[in-house]
Order: sequence, then C-alpha cells, then structure tokens
Amino acid sequence: MKTLSTVGLMTSGGDSPGMNPCIRAVVRTALANNLRVMGIHGGFEGLIQGNFQLLGARDVGGILQHGGTILQTARCEEFTTQHGRMKALRQMNSAGMEAVFVIGGDGSLRGAHALASEGVPVVGIPASIDNDIYATDMCIGVDTALNTIVDAIDKLRDTATSHNRAFLVETMGRECGYLAQRAGIICGAEMALIPEKTTTPEQVAEAVENAYVRGKRHCIIVVAEGFTPHAAEMAEKISKMEIGFDTRVTILGHVQRGGRPTAFDRMLSTRFGVHAVEFLLEGKSDIMTALDGRDIVEVPLETVISNKRSISEEYFRIATMLAR
Amino acid sequence: MKTLSTVGLMTSGGDSPGMNPCIRAVVRTALANNLRVMGIHGGFEGLIQGNFQLLGARDVGGILQHGGTILQTARCEEFTTQHGRMKALRQMNSAGMEAVFVIGGDGSLRGAHALASEGVPVVGIPASIDNDIYATDMCIGVDTALNTIVDAIDKLRDTATSHNRAFLVETMGRECGYLAQRAGIICGAEMALIPEKTTTPEQVAEAVENAYVRGKRHCIIVVAEGFTPHAAEMAEKISKMEIGFDTRVTILGHVQRGGRPTAFDRMLSTRFGVHAVEFLLEGKSDIMTALDGRDIVEVPLETVISNKRSISEEYFRIATMLAR
Amino acid sequence: MKTLSTVGLMTSGGDSPGMNPCIRAVVRTALANNLRVMGIHGGFEGLIQGNFQLLGARDVGGILQHGGTILQTARCEEFTTQHGRMKALRQMNSAGMEAVFVIGGDGSLRGAHALASEGVPVVGIPASIDNDIYATDMCIGVDTALNTIVDAIDKLRDTATSHNRAFLVETMGRECGYLAQRAGIICGAEMALIPEKTTTPEQVAEAVENAYVRGKRHCIIVVAEGFTPHAAEMAEKISKMEIGFDTRVTILGHVQRGGRPTAFDRMLSTRFGVHAVEFLLEGKSDIMTALDGRDIVEVPLETVISNKRSISEEYFRIATMLAR
Amino acid sequence: MKTLSTVGLMTSGGDSPGMNPCIRAVVRTALANNLRVMGIHGGFEGLIQGNFQLLGARDVGGILQHGGTILQTARCEEFTTQHGRMKALRQMNSAGMEAVFVIGGDGSLRGAHALASEGVPVVGIPASIDNDIYATDMCIGVDTALNTIVDAIDKLRDTATSHNRAFLVETMGRECGYLAQRAGIICGAEMALIPEKTTTPEQVAEAVENAYVRGKRHCIIVVAEGFTPHAAEMAEKISKMEIGFDTRVTILGHVQRGGRPTAFDRMLSTRFGVHAVEFLLEGKSDIMTALDGRDIVEVPLETVISNKRSISEEYFRIATMLAR
Repeated sequence: MKTLSTVGLMTSGGDSPGMNPCIRAVVRTALANNLRVMGIHGGFEGLIQGNFQLLGARDVGGILQHGGTILQTARCEEFTTQHGRMKALRQMNSAGMEAVFVIGGDGSLRGAHALASEGVPVVGIPASIDNDIYATDMCIGVDTALNTIVDAIDKLRDTATSHNRAFLVETMGRECGYLAQRAGIICGAEMALIPEKTTTPEQVAEAVENAYVRGKRHCIIVVAEGFTPHAAEMAEKISKMEIGFDTRVTILGHVQRGGRPTAFDRMLSTRFGVHAVEFLLEGKSDIMTALDGRDIVEVPLETVISNKRSISEEYFRIATMLAR
Repeated sequence: MKTLSTVGLMTSGGDSPGMNPCIRAVVRTALANNLRVMGIHGGFEGLIQGNFQLLGARDVGGILQHGGTILQTARCEEFTTQHGRMKALRQMNSAGMEAVFVIGGDGSLRGAHALASEGVPVVGIPASIDNDIYATDMCIGVDTALNTIVDAIDKLRDTATSHNRAFLVETMGRECGYLAQRAGIICGAEMALIPEKTTTPEQVAEAVENAYVRGKRHCIIVVAEGFTPHAAEMAEKISKMEIGFDTRVTILGHVQRGGRPTAFDRMLSTRFGVHAVEFLLEGKSDIMTALDGRDIVEVPLETVISNKRSISEEYFRIATMLAR
Repeated sequence: MKTLSTVGLMTSGGDSPGMNPCIRAVVRTALANNLRVMGIHGGFEGLIQGNFQLLGARDVGGILQHGGTILQTARCEEFTTQHGRMKALRQMNSAGMEAVFVIGGDGSLRGAHALASEGVPVVGIPASIDNDIYATDMCIGVDTALNTIVDAIDKLRDTATSHNRAFLVETMGRECGYLAQRAGIICGAEMALIPEKTTTPEQVAEAVENAYVRGKRHCIIVVAEGFTPHAAEMAEKISKMEIGFDTRVTILGHVQRGGRPTAFDRMLSTRFGVHAVEFLLEGKSDIMTALDGRDIVEVPLETVISNKRSISEEYFRIATMLAR
Repeated sequence: MKTLSTVGLMTSGGDSPGMNPCIRAVVRTALANNLRVMGIHGGFEGLIQGNFQLLGARDVGGILQHGGTILQTARCEEFTTQHGRMKALRQMNSAGMEAVFVIGGDGSLRGAHALASEGVPVVGIPASIDNDIYATDMCIGVDTALNTIVDAIDKLRDTATSHNRAFLVETMGRECGYLAQRAGIICGAEMALIPEKTTTPEQVAEAVENAYVRGKRHCIIVVAEGFTPHAAEMAEKISKMEIGFDTRVTILGHVQRGGRPTAFDRMLSTRFGVHAVEFLLEGKSDIMTALDGRDIVEVPLETVISNKRSISEEYFRIATMLAR
C-alpha cells in the first residue's frame, strides 16, 4: 500500500452511544500519524453526495460525553447498487480520499465490504446496541443501552412492587436476544423471551404464577423485540390464564439508543478508533476491529458478514438458576 | 376532638415517587407527638381487610431514597359502597384506629372524603405524578416524573439529531396536560399536545415542517396521554403530509411512576407529612395538605374534589415564544 | 424609555446549572420582541473588553440540557472601580448596546446595580447554587446542586451502612446554610451544621452517639462550608469522644456546580429569562427577577443587595423531628 | 471432598458496588445445589464472633440494585493471628459450617488463603473498586466506580469550561493507578498521574500550559490517591508556574464506593457468584474466581496474593495520543 494522506470517516446505520468518542479517537490517532481526516456526513448517502468536511483536533473536542454522532447517520439504499458505488468512488477521487473508516452495524459493514471490493482500503468498526455482530464480544453502544434498560427496569420494579404487578418489558435488539437475556439476568427478571429460544405462553404464565405463589411482590418478564408473539400480544394471552398478578406492558423504545456513553463504551470505542487507524497504517483492509476477550483484534469483513452470532449456553444456565 | 392515641396511614391509587419519604415523615412526626401509627397495607382494600401493622421509627428508616411505597397500594371498588365503608369502620374500631392519613390521587381523596363523612378524622395528602389535583401547586411525584421524562427526551434528542428525525413522545398525565406541557417547554420541544387545547394534525405538521425549514436537525413533539388522537395515530396522520422529517413514536409508560424521588419530592412529601400530623393534632379533619406558593396549607377535601385544575396562560405563552 | 434595539447579555460570578437555558430564554424572547442580543463573553471583564458576539435563535439551540454557560463567566475586580465602569460604558456605546441582562450571584448583582447607577437599563437574574440571594425563593442552579448532593449522600450511605460509619459531608454554600440544611432533611442526616446556628462538637458527638445507641447502622452529618470549625476539624474533635462509629470526611467540592440542569432549574431559568425581557420592555430597570411562591416578580436591586436572606424556622423544626 | 451441606458467605474489607448481586448469586446457586448458606456478618470479625444467619432465596430478593453489602463488612486484625483463626474455626464447627466464600479485596483474599491453610475449603471472589488484584481483568465494583468518576468529571468539566480553569481530580485506587488512568482516557483529561509512573510538577505544568496555548477552555488532570505528591500539593506547585489556567482541586472521596451497581458489575458479580459455588462443588479450594477475557476461571489464591498487577502499555500509548 502506498503512503496514505487523506482518509474518510463515517457513521452509518442506526446510531449508538459511543460513536462520538470513536470519531474522536480515529481523528486524533490519524492526526498523530500525519493523516488528514475528512468527516463524511450522513453515512454512505453522504459518500455518494460528497458531503465531506475536514476534521481537526478541536472539531472533535467536547464530544466524548455526548450520545448520537456529530457526523449524523442514515441508511442508504443507493449504495447497494453498482451505480451508487461508482458515484461514491468518483466523489472520493475528487476529494483525494484514499481510505474509509465505517462505524456502524451489520448493514453498514456489508457496505464497507462492498466498498473494499471496489479496491478501496476500508476498516469497519462495529457499532450497534443490538450486539448482533459476529466475531466481536461487544459492539459500541451495547453497554450504554444495557444500563439504560437496567435503569428503566429498576424504576418499573418500584411501581410493580407497589401494585403487585407483572410487567412485560420490550427491549430493542432486532433478531438478537442479547440485550433482553442479559437484562433479564441482571434485573432479576423471572424470564427473558428471546428469538433464539422458543417459549410458549403457557410456559410464561407458569413462570409468572410460580413467582406469585412463592410470594414475590412483582414479576418482570423481559421480551426481545424480535421475539414472537410481541410483548403486547403475549401479555394479552397470559392475562387470560391463572397467573395471580395484574399485567402491564412497557416498550422501552428509542431511549435505548441515546444517552451519554458509559465508561465501558467510551473505552471500547476509543480503543476501536485507535486500533482501526493503526491497522490501516499496517496495510490491512477489508477488516473489522473486534473485541476478543481483553484484546482488540482484526477480523475479515467477509467472516463478519457471513456468520451469525450465537448466545452462550452459560447465560441460559445462569438465568434459570437465579430466577427463584 | 378527644386526645388521639392511634392513627392509621395508607397509600392509595397509583403510586408515585415520594410516597415513602411521606410515610417516614408522618410516622416520625406522629411518634414525636406520642401517637401510635398503624400502617394500612394496600390502600382502602387493606382498610376493609384490617391489613394493619404497627410502624416504629426504625421501620421507616432507609426508605427515604426509594420509589414506590412500602405500604403498597391498590384501587378499591368496594370502598365506594356503603357496605365497604362499614366493614372498614369495623376494622378501625377493632384496632383502636381513631384517624386516618390517606396519601394518594384524585380517587383516593374522594375515598378520604367519604371516610370523613362517616365521622372519622381524616387528612389527605396529594400524591399523583399527573399533577391533576385542585388547590395544590404540586403533588408528590410530579417533579420526579418530570425529571424522568426530561432524561428520556434528552436521550431521544441524541438519536433524533443523528438521524434527522421527528419524535412524538407520549407522557402520562391522564386527562391533565401538565407533564406534557412542562416537558415540552423544558426539553425544547416544537409543540406539546394536551387535552386542554385543541390542535389539529395540520397544525402539528406545520410546526414540524417549520422546524425542518429553519434547519433544525430534529423535532420533538410531546403528547399527553389524554390527548386525542393518540401519539401513534397522530404520527400516522402527519407522516402522510409534507413535513421533511422521518417520524417515530415513543410511549414512555410506567417508568415515569418509578425511581428515586428527587430532592424536591423528598422535601415536599416530608413537609406534607409533618404538616398533615400537625393539622390533625390541631383538630382539623376532612382536609388535604396543599402547597400554596412557599407554604403548606390545608384545603377542605370537598373543595378539592369538586374543582378541576386549569393550566396557567403563562406557560402557553412561554411555549410559543421559545419553540423557534 | 426610548425604544430599545440592542441588548447585552452576560453570565457572571460562579457558574450554576441553568445559566444556559436562561441564556436561551432571554435570546429567544428578545428576538420575538424584535430586539438584537449581543452575548458578552466572560462577565463584566468581557463588558470592559468589548468581547461581544451577536446571538441568533440557532446559536442557543441545543444548550438547554448543558451545565455551565456558553458565555463563560469570571469575577472582575476592575468593574468595581469607576475607571472600569467607564471603559464598559464606552464599549457599550461603541457597540450600540442599550441595556444589559446580568445572570449571576450576589457580587454580580452588585455589579448590575452599579451599572444601572450609571444610567444603563439593567435587569438582574439570580443564579447561585448557594441560594444566598435575598428576595427570591430560589436561584438558578440550587435545585440541580441539591440533587447532586442527594445523589452523593445516597452513595455515601451505601458505604457508611456497610461499614457502620459516620460521615461528615461538606456541601458548598459559602456563608449560607441553605444547601446543607435542606440536604440534611431530605437525606435523613442526623444533623446539619450551618453558619446560621451554633453547634458545639459536644452536641455533634451526642447526636452521633445517640444514633449509634438507637441501633442505626450509619450516621450522616451534613456540614455547610461556611460552618466553623470545618468538617475535617470537627471530625477530628468528635472522633476523640465516645461516639460508637468510626468517622470519615467527604468534601463534595466543585461537582456541585456542574451537571445537566434539572427540570425545576430549566423551568425556573426559562421563566426568569422570559420575564426579564418583558420587564425591560415595560420600562423597568435596576431590578432583579425573583421567584415569589408561584410567581415571577421584580424586586429592586437596591433591596436585594442590602438585605441578607434568613432561614425559615419551619425547617429547623422539621430537621429535629425527623432525625430519629 | 465429602458432600457439603452448609457453607458460609462473607463480604470483607472495603465495600464495593456489586457485592449484593454477588451475595444473591452465591445464595441462589447454592440453594439450587441443595446447600444451606449461612451469612457471616461483618467479615472475618463476624466469623470469629459467630455472627451467622441462615439465608434463604427471599432474603436475597430485591438487593440486586443496591450498593454496599447486606452482610456488612469490616477489616479485622485479630484474624491475622493464629489465635483469631482458632476462634473462627471453633465457631464454624459449632455452626456446622464446612466451607466459606470470601468476597473482598487484597487483604481479604489473604485472609481467605490463611483460612484455607487451616484446611477449610475456601473460594475467594475479587471485589475492590481499585482493581488492584492480580490475575483477574476486573474486580467487582470497578466499573461502577469508574462510571461514578466519569459522571463527576463530566460535571467538573462544565464548570471548568465556564471559568477557564484547570482541575486536579483525585480518584481512589490506593497503590494502583487503574482508575485514574482509565478515567483520564475516557474523560479526555490532559494527563493522569499514577503511582506506576513518575511525573514531575514541571511535566504537569507543561501539559497544562500546552492545553492553554492550544486554545482549550479547560484542563483536567486526574490524580491517583497513591501518587506522590498528592493532588493538593501538586496543585500548589504548578500554580506557581506559568500555566495559563487558574487551578482547583477536587477529591472525589467515598462516593466512589457507593451507588447502584452498573450492568457490567451486576453481571460480573453474578457470574463470579455462580462459578464460585460450582468450583467448590467440583472440589476446588484455596482459589479465586477471575475474569480472563470472556471467561470466568479459577486461580490459586497463592498466585493472587504473591503477585502485583501491572498496567498495560497499550493504555499509556492511547492516553498520550488522544490528549491533544
């Protein structure tokens, strides 16, 4: 690889808390290595439109503690077409942009791989509160989202206990049960309903009734958004059975995407940003930064997008043991 | 009034953050005045069932910072009947309970008045996150709920800004627009939709489009749960018009009822509790404690339940002026 | 008063959370009334230096939720001299600035009064976490600071309880005991030591020992920074007496000045800002906006700076009654 | 090892957030495996005094979200003597306690090893906000403490920026610089002063001045409590040099020990608790549970107490690169 001088940086897909500290880390590490960084506004759409802006050290000052992304983000259909990608390449050439960092989720990493396939040096950085990306222990935003969920369920427990109620709480996560399962364990839920595991209304009703009989003053069921039937429908089904508790449904919604990033997310996104630049400088491309235990490693984007993350057996075991 | 020796204390209706500090204040003030306090579990239902427990100074230690209510709460149909009230009086007599403090919302204060009409000394304390009770500036729980809403909308703004989105956020409040209107002002919303004021979908769409045209990167509309049409329906209507932004809906739900009480709610509920006991000792009954400016005053329950709170013109004016 | 066209706006003295929402409210209300607003950077020092910047509606967007002040602040000796004030007047004339809004504490309001004495239309807005300003129930920042203190003491109580410890916690407040006294009541402290009331080490030791004997697992004493002896010295004195608990000291410090403003502070500062502009437009000057119960009123600056706020007896009574 | 029937459980040393979820996990996992669990109150002191209490599933309900430890904790000199340990063994025999779980820091794990050396099956669980224990990536409480520090520094930054100030912020950590270094990186500090690395007042002053010259509006230096000279002394030294900023010192103190455990700490402590019981049931003893990347593993207590944790080079590099 020839010596790079100008690199592009975008956030893409759904936003997640920690994107801003990651932007800061990429920019400052790049500057420390004598690269110029152009911020690409609005994801792949911005790449196609040439919506670029030079970023200096001061431009990324004071953003460490903010949710969202100063580069804004979007989903972009046009980039999935050859025509769209050609327009993007033309914009890059015209701006002298020689490589691109893509911070985003599953779809965005597919876009990153497609861009790399056109011969552009590309490093992806996994950001998604859903934690549904293969090959990395954690994505940017997951820890913040989980803490937001924990705060909300701690509040719901106050009111549930005062009223002897059962709450079905729907978390985000798309097709992935990670958030719901972890939240279930650390919030002391009776049960977590996740797409990766079938649970019938009868089983849910039994768990709720069990809690009632054991003298619990509340009952929390966490439901992943990808689970079928949805929380509201499940609540309707079980409230017709004999469960003891009165039932309510809460859908946590988009608040899970926002908020000041936690300590963990600031550190993870900072490390991802630093290593992404260093990987690129080592001549690596078409890869994603990943958390592997303690370490930040690189994984081929091809591997990332052709595999599906699974849920560790350990957590099923823990969930069952502790919900008593 | 003869010298009292045993008084009862209940929380009733929907729970709200600050009920626990209020319980603590009533109990400790009563003890300081040589009264015995019996906690009544589960509101008027507990009064009918004789579900009583003597409360000492230590029983209310360590509850100041917790949401919900250690006495639990419920709504109770039976107490609205003469028969129900007779059962309650019988339980009170049998336990030597000579007066009752009722911490709760509109319906609970009606119950308190009905109990007073049977000749029982009763003092009501207004607790409702909706702030829909006449004659008191604030009820227990309103400030905490408002801060919970502010936190949530601050998070939504992060993600709204990243995506150029408009959010319709539904708050609690039943028939009262207080929470939605205040949240609208202090969260920088474009508009708040409240039951006390008609707003058409066309007007909403215009406000959203205006924000778009002025170059705002997000748009927040706060919708009271008592507003018609509901947030989801409104979102559907306006997203068919020309508004610039993509639209999402979030229903904040029961998290608004929970959480550690704020400084304001701890102080208000503490003052209400102290004064409620003092009013009773002064021979007052069939009244409610109320915040009137800086002062805690008493208001006849009759007045409270036969009037409807209105919304001050000042806030409409402020809201319009600042949403630009 | 002739028709105004350009007004200045500064924040001065110690910063407090809510200054930003107040800036936003002043600017947008002024714009709605066809006034131009010049932001003065760095308080009276900025006025002397002519450090001005025109503020539009978008310049104050997205600041509602941030602590601190975008106009920065400072204390300024030079403005207390006639020479300094003349330099300020010259800068104002040169920029066409016809009136000034001063958001700040006691010293800043003295400066505002001095400026008004030179014939400049001036409206002061009370901002100080200490709540030590006469004639207003609350200043901007007090509610946020109190909630920060409450959060900190709730955390200290966790560790105090685990270790059977007594903590002396020093709050801010300069010569005013407001924060310490209120925090004492709403955090369930055994005692609050404030400058307005003499308390001997022997009395403190007795209160701590009492808590120990009654079986409490922790003991919290809140100490105002203006109290003598200071928290550390007091801790040393009492730990030599027989008090049962092991003792620790925590000085909360400048964290009390920062943080996202609470719902209450956002509303108070917004109302202050709106009314300040309206008072000026009504031709009023040399006044301060004040919270009087539910209402925002004006008070002559002369009255504000020549009186000292006192602490209501009610709170002493409540504190004594509940600490058991 | 013979079949166990009764096990003891204590928290010892300084408390840390997450001890309660860990207690809950140990108790419920033990019950699920037909073990009886006796809670030992007040650490090794409680073991010597025989201060035991049987713990059922309901006794550990509702503690997941609370800081501190329901079993209380203490440091205990007597247990370091042979005589003290003999008294403890006698109490254990008398209560039929056959094994002990010790949740605590460095000193407590030494106690655990000493107990194991007497032939008692013992499993240690690392809990210390300082993260100064060898062989585990993280201890219980570190993530919560780090988030508390981040919240505090985010608040300090508000006021620092408003006043153009430099703050020296002292964190806990005893002889370990972990908290200070990580906080420095994720709070955007100019520098972190840690015991593991010599930094002169001249170097600090240079970093502060650099920030001033580059146009930064604030400067944060994080100082570990084990660093010499202490924060206050360092502030005094550098404020005599040419640094541009006015300087303030804040000592965060014991608030860092308290607070609701974060999502991460709830999960870590839950996993430690579950695995601790399972390791014991597999016949393992004189070990500690440890986080090794993604996995919970066992490490001999001997190894733990005879090694000192070091700080990874990666973080020094990141810190230097990003503070610009």
